[in-house]
Amino acid sequence: MSPRADQDVDDLVARARAGETRAVARLVSMVEDAAPQLREVMAALAPHAGHAHVVGITGPPGVGKSTTTSALVTELRAAGRRIGVLAVDPSSPFSGGALLGDRVRMQDHATDPGVFIRSMASRGHLGGLSWTTPQAMRVLDAAGFDTVIVETVGVGQSEVEIAALADTTLVLMAPGLGDGVQAAKAGILEIGDIYVVNKADRDGAEQVRRELRSMIALGDRPEGHWKPPIVLTVAPAGRGLDEVVAELGRHRAWLEETGELARRRIRRAREEIEAIAVAGLRAHWEGVSGHDDLDALAQAVVAGEKDPYAAADELLS
Amino acid sequence: MSPRADQDVDDLVARARAGETRAVARLVSMVEDAAPQLREVMAALAPHAGHAHVVGITGPPGVGKSTTTSALVTELRAAGRRIGVLAVDPSSPFSGGALLGDRVRMQDHATDPGVFIRSMASRGHLGGLSWTTPQAMRVLDAAGFDTVIVETVGVGQSEVEIAALADTTLVLMAPGLGDGVQAAKAGILEIGDIYVVNKADRDGAEQVRRELRSMIALGDRPEGHWKPPIVLTVAPAGRGLDEVVAELGRHRAWLEETGELARRRIRRAREEIEAIAVAGLRAHWEGVSGHDDLDALAQAVVAGEKDPYAAADELLS
Repeated sequence: MSPRADQDVDDLVARARAGETRAVARLVSMVEDAAPQLREVMAALAPHAGHAHVVGITGPPGVGKSTTTSALVTELRAAGRRIGVLAVDPSSPFSGGALLGDRVRMQDHATDPGVFIRSMASRGHLGGLSWTTPQAMRVLDAAGFDTVIVETVGVGQSEVEIAALADTTLVLMAPGLGDGVQAAKAGILEIGDIYVVNKADRDGAEQVRRELRSMIALGDRPEGHWKPPIVLTVAPAGRGLDEVVAELGRHRAWLEETGELARRRIRRAREEIEAIAVAGLRAHWEGVSGHDDLDALAQAVVAGEKDPYAAADELLS
Repeated sequence: MSPRADQDVDDLVARARAGETRAVARLVSMVEDAAPQLREVMAALAPHAGHAHVVGITGPPGVGKSTTTSALVTELRAAGRRIGVLAVDPSSPFSGGALLGDRVRMQDHATDPGVFIRSMASRGHLGGLSWTTPQAMRVLDAAGFDTVIVETVGVGQSEVEIAALADTTLVLMAPGLGDGVQAAKAGILEIGDIYVVNKADRDGAEQVRRELRSMIALGDRPEGHWKPPIVLTVAPAGRGLDEVVAELGRHRAWLEETGELARRRIRRAREEIEAIAVAGLRAHWEGVSGHDDLDALAQAVVAGEKDPYAAADELLS
């Protein structure tokens, strides 16, 4: 690394922390592109991270995630907070900028320098949320955003992964979604810190609330553990969002009082470190080193001369 | 490993290869449960694997995947082949036996000893298809099934992952699915070796075929490369399935003639070896060794004393 690049990184981080949107955007792009300076960027950001409240928002298709996120941003902005939003689309391994239609609803905030919004496609080698997501969160956190929202559609395992990344996970439901909600419930029960029944002006909202309440009551929680509240909202009208913000604050306070915040963040850091280590090993194994042991092992497995466990042992040794 | 366990494994493998369904089921369960004897099982199976034609079947929800798979099994059985089916549900990280409703349609084959059917939930740590899927495929292959079908719904990245596992990938479409199909197209275009327009007796089937044909025509294929055919089917009536079987044979022959079969299988073995190596490393890092370096590193990252790249370097060293 040249002294020049080092200066550039320090300058960029300083400008991002001073609130310059373009510098933040550049840093997130460096994460997405796995830029060579990424290690320097992360080293420069490390002392500044850890202050933001990371909020995950998920739910089945059609519940109004983008509209709710947008309304939540409006509410948090009214309280003077700076907000970073990462909209992650795990269903688009090929396209770079996904869900653009949905993102349009977020344009209310496009000219507000206190709001940073970025769509990220999930391009992770192993599916689900990209390994870049935690690093982009880290950029926004260190850049001084008070709340970092990570929004993703609840399909596959992405809702479980988002819960692993967030301090507080907000699960959205809505009436009239039919089987999708039923199917989503099993997974969703385990991950929500706050449940939101959106489209609460429609028929069936009360029933969705009742169903959620009895499922939460069934959950086996130790004494003193967080009991997820249920909030009814009408996102386009901003209705109920003040209550969502209040519950976010209450949950954050609970996380701090009980030490759960530190536990969640250590768990998250463990996974982040592991993911980086694994990505590094894969790059090494896949012949970046010029010496392609993995290919020879794979040929032996295909020929039936070795089983994959024996091959994995050799790869690691 | 005791001599006893060794005998058990050899016996089990021998019985599976002799066509005993219960022995096959037991071996697949050992894969699913990550049984301690799994290494012995894989070592015993290794010399016998590599003969089956591995066919991936995917497509958006509602195209009739289970019905088509069932009809394909009937057609292949009529030709005297032994068929193994793995139905993988990537949307169920929590539940063990998923999609049971769909599986009911496969019960036509429940009493046929030449057909083995198993539903697998995807419980992989990193989302998408479970790392157990390739190993279950290996069991069926080594047990002597002529065709191993892996069926999964095309959501998230599972359709991309199934294409990476299969020799031949069959992508199902159907008329009248609306936006789901549109959304699926980008990913699907890159992975299909054979396209099937199911429900071909319905309005709009011809239009789906035309759309697929123009998309295939747009694809940039080198000289001599496989041009995916489009087959129209009505699965419950068995219509068109003979043509699907013919195209499967044609593709398999093409794979062998061009050396593409070996290339695909080496790629698959590479990923399988890597996944096992990574799972082993994770288990080691996550404190199975009793010495939890990862936790100390995670705490340093949370405290802002280290960045995750530096922590990953330490973990690997």
